[in-house]
Amino acid sequence: MSTYKAPLADMRFALFDVLGAEAAFQRLGYTDASRDVLDAVLEEGARFTETVLAPLNSVGDQIGCSHDKASGAVTTPPGFKQAYAQYVEGGWSGLTADTRFGGQGLPHAAGVPLKEMIDAANLAWGNFPLLSHGATEALLHHGEEWQQEVFLKPLVEGRWTGTMCLTEPHCGTDLGLLKTRAEPQADGSYAITGTKIFITAGEHDFTDNIIHLVLARLPDAPAGSKGISLFIVPKVKVARDGRLGEANAVRCGSLEHKMGIHASATCVMNFDGAQGYLIGQPHKGLMAMFTMMNTARLAVGLQGLGLSDRALQNALRYARERLQMRALSGAKFPELAADPIIVHPDVRRMLLTCKALVEGGRVMGYDAALLVDLAHASGDEKERADADALIGFMTPIVKACLTEWGVECTYHALQCFGGHGYIAEHGMEQLARDARITTLYEGTTGIQALDLLGRKVMQLQGAGLKLMLERIERFCAEHEGNAAVAEFVAPLRAKAAQWQQLTMSVGKRAMANPDEVGAAAYDYLMYSGYVSLAYWWARSVAASEASAQSERFKAGKRETARFFFARLLPRCEGHAAAIGASVETLTALDAEAFDA
Amino acid sequence: MSTYKAPLADMRFALFDVLGAEAAFQRLGYTDASRDVLDAVLEEGARFTETVLAPLNSVGDQIGCSHDKASGAVTTPPGFKQAYAQYVEGGWSGLTADTRFGGQGLPHAAGVPLKEMIDAANLAWGNFPLLSHGATEALLHHGEEWQQEVFLKPLVEGRWTGTMCLTEPHCGTDLGLLKTRAEPQADGSYAITGTKIFITAGEHDFTDNIIHLVLARLPDAPAGSKGISLFIVPKVKVARDGRLGEANAVRCGSLEHKMGIHASATCVMNFDGAQGYLIGQPHKGLMAMFTMMNTARLAVGLQGLGLSDRALQNALRYARERLQMRALSGAKFPELAADPIIVHPDVRRMLLTCKALVEGGRVMGYDAALLVDLAHASGDEKERADADALIGFMTPIVKACLTEWGVECTYHALQCFGGHGYIAEHGMEQLARDARITTLYEGTTGIQALDLLGRKVMQLQGAGLKLMLERIERFCAEHEGNAAVAEFVAPLRAKAAQWQQLTMSVGKRAMANPDEVGAAAYDYLMYSGYVSLAYWWARSVAASEASAQSERFKAGKRETARFFFARLLPRCEGHAAAIGASVETLTALDAEAFDA
Repeated sequence: MSTYKAPLADMRFALFDVLGAEAAFQRLGYTDASRDVLDAVLEEGARFTETVLAPLNSVGDQIGCSHDKASGAVTTPPGFKQAYAQYVEGGWSGLTADTRFGGQGLPHAAGVPLKEMIDAANLAWGNFPLLSHGATEALLHHGEEWQQEVFLKPLVEGRWTGTMCLTEPHCGTDLGLLKTRAEPQADGSYAITGTKIFITAGEHDFTDNIIHLVLARLPDAPAGSKGISLFIVPKVKVARDGRLGEANAVRCGSLEHKMGIHASATCVMNFDGAQGYLIGQPHKGLMAMFTMMNTARLAVGLQGLGLSDRALQNALRYARERLQMRALSGAKFPELAADPIIVHPDVRRMLLTCKALVEGGRVMGYDAALLVDLAHASGDEKERADADALIGFMTPIVKACLTEWGVECTYHALQCFGGHGYIAEHGMEQLARDARITTLYEGTTGIQALDLLGRKVMQLQGAGLKLMLERIERFCAEHEGNAAVAEFVAPLRAKAAQWQQLTMSVGKRAMANPDEVGAAAYDYLMYSGYVSLAYWWARSVAASEASAQSERFKAGKRETARFFFARLLPRCEGHAAAIGASVETLTALDAEAFDA
Repeated sequence: MSTYKAPLADMRFALFDVLGAEAAFQRLGYTDASRDVLDAVLEEGARFTETVLAPLNSVGDQIGCSHDKASGAVTTPPGFKQAYAQYVEGGWSGLTADTRFGGQGLPHAAGVPLKEMIDAANLAWGNFPLLSHGATEALLHHGEEWQQEVFLKPLVEGRWTGTMCLTEPHCGTDLGLLKTRAEPQADGSYAITGTKIFITAGEHDFTDNIIHLVLARLPDAPAGSKGISLFIVPKVKVARDGRLGEANAVRCGSLEHKMGIHASATCVMNFDGAQGYLIGQPHKGLMAMFTMMNTARLAVGLQGLGLSDRALQNALRYARERLQMRALSGAKFPELAADPIIVHPDVRRMLLTCKALVEGGRVMGYDAALLVDLAHASGDEKERADADALIGFMTPIVKACLTEWGVECTYHALQCFGGHGYIAEHGMEQLARDARITTLYEGTTGIQALDLLGRKVMQLQGAGLKLMLERIERFCAEHEGNAAVAEFVAPLRAKAAQWQQLTMSVGKRAMANPDEVGAAAYDYLMYSGYVSLAYWWARSVAASEASAQSERFKAGKRETARFFFARLLPRCEGHAAAIGASVETLTALDAEAFDA
């Protein structure tokens, strides 16, 4: 079985040493978010996730959720419901939620290490509370006062959970095609009818009520994505005064059988004239849903990160224990029957790849969370606007790169185990299967790439990119004379310049042919991810050298940064060549000529 | 469910148009291997794999093998045993085996498309007959006459199957550590005692007897890998005159629970003083086993290829059917609700990546098989020696690259399905799980890389590389004036020159520090794979243009080659940088400092 220990030292390093979160929280007015409080949250979070959630990860995979056809009820694996009760009791569900609705009012970034721990400990379990956040945000931003009053408190307190009901059998990415109908009723509510698929936590036994946020069409809706409205549809009917009524006409029709996250209930939900309430403006539902999706995308990025870290931890343990062959340069542990495999350079290559992607990715993911707080709570309008532009730019990068790297890291970590990695009992293959969902849901990598290059760069004239390039140049200028990071400054500057140049080159070609955007998007996304990581690695070394961390810790950061710059950053060259390649290399072949 | 159709047109193209196999077979004296015979084999093979094996792939995954603790018996999934009987009845098991032992005597390369079809149709099933080939070869090369007489015919005819029993709980790669003992008995046989793990097809219900080839130590064996001998241990005892005796003291203790290939019985085998016979010289067992392993490695490469092709076929079908979004350059099918996703450049990127790796990899894999025939049957001593050196060089590349690309292609193909790819019913996630074993067994990718750079390049002074570079230069010189491939000649030459230069650079550094080999090995391997593929793509275009293939077919080859050169070959730059990076980037960090 794979084990998990929350990487508190590196989480603190990322949050406090690199990102200066403590000062930022105070400046933003989160006076409760003192270092003492944050440390306590980290330690309690570690205890909860390591001792309650992590031990349930394997049983969740083996047993999964089960569905009762007759009643539509879903039973979660043994221990899952109890773990959720402890989560609610510990006040975790409202950690960063508004105090007006029973939350603890901590900044968003303060909740992100907990999120990472939950995902690493038990991704499938983590999907149940995750979806409540989306519902909470949609209600906060778009709900009427009575809706907030009635629905928010139970959601924040974790007494109810939420879902996002978007996908239908014939439409996922292309929500403009959706068919679910909403008929206005005499009492001001709506009767919702249709089938939604892939509904995470659509039905379960954790709570007495489940709040579905459902996209549907009003009778007078225009066709396409401009005719979609958002509705709130509770499992158990809720009156405007908050009183609970009878069961609503919504029911789980079946559970999907999936490659991984077996314990996460992925439901087909049938709405059969279910009572719902409109949230926000008619026909503006997609916009409201996008509000939720951006945070959800950052959250999925953290899932990739958490799984990568857990995979690395276990590969590292195994590489230190497993004795096999001698180092090519001569026995390193002659007293043992063979050397531990961590002496072999190729095993180190795999471990360092994971370490570079995990620790660099952690700073990148936490920074995005801090930008959310800046955009929300800064007193300075320009700072708010800049943070907002920067999050918009970084969200697809964080989502797609952390999840692609999650697939990669779980691959390397499994590979370190040799054939044993393929055997279920070691738990490595579960991590690989679980990680595989993260590049698919909340928008595939291809969709993130289009969001980045098509929307965030092309449509918004590269505002976010400009801010990111400024950050990089500011760092380089500040550290030109800093011997500790001098070796990274020139390569980082070169990559930033190439990034800008590649952007302009695609932009120019896209004016002649819009398909150039789609042709370059994926490689542009990955290129952006590696350059962002180079920035965060250089900053991490600068922060570590300037900190009171141990010499061992500092060596770890320095050597991993060197590894990253020498061996991973050059992947950019392959991506740059692909970005530079003409769209013709993708479009020349007739769709019929793809078969040999 | 995923479907499978044998890609006969491209198989024929690779074998006949690119590799000229028909003429080669005749020249080598395989007079039976006429085009008519080979075509019939291809068509019958397609029928058998498409209609018998492919439909069992999903049920095999769902039901898997089961083990009876009391008797040690293993039951294969419904239909598997019957499919094996059809395989034996059809004469497939002896297709390329020696006619002296009941085989059909076709050349090795003639059996390779069938092997690919079996792997694509049902990888888990394919592992049962696969292991018989290893046993057959070991007996052919190292068995005494009575052993060949008694064991070979039933193996060739498929009435019995074989296994390779190498791995023990504490040793996989490092067989020098193995502990299984062989005690000489008065009758000239040996009593074998020990536990072997990961034994594919170690127990099953296909045949009445199973022939285990077991590595064990004699009482006077020197320590390490020089003290290992090879024994033949049948499940049911076999006397020297061929008479069957009682059950031998060998038994399946349990089955492993694996990420994929659920229908392939991966057994823990307990030998408890089992009767065995020595094959070959005492203490020379590892050498005999390596004979088997090289062919097995090429065979595993084909597994990666087969799964990639099946994944691509299904992704292609889905990309043509699934309607979602409009092309960025405007609706391509305005009469439909949305465009089929194959219009989107990013979907094409994934499909073309698979197509380039599959079709290029096919020629590379088939060429290696043809080299086996040349090394075996050529009348010219130099040609035999050259073919042997070239196979030795190409074997780790074929094994590792085709399987790494198998993981990559099943990834892309699943990704084309979006969230639906993660759902079991589409069958894409099974292909991804099944593919994951191929970079692990028969030597991980890291082990292949060390075999390539450490043994085949460094120890053998690059003999195989030199031959490969000569092939490339010969092609370039011949086609300099050929307008059809002119665009590929210069980039191919440049890559060949860089390949040579990188090799010399690593060689020089390795003299100072042998760990440089381990540090560069993986990236050197992948670099070699991409350059080899560039060669095969250029040759494929030349062959297709010179052939009577349709214009559509020619366009497919030409545009895929262009895609490969523009978008995949540049991955070499990242690998080249890593090869050039100092070993220090991997070894500087203390093993203890890997945790943050």
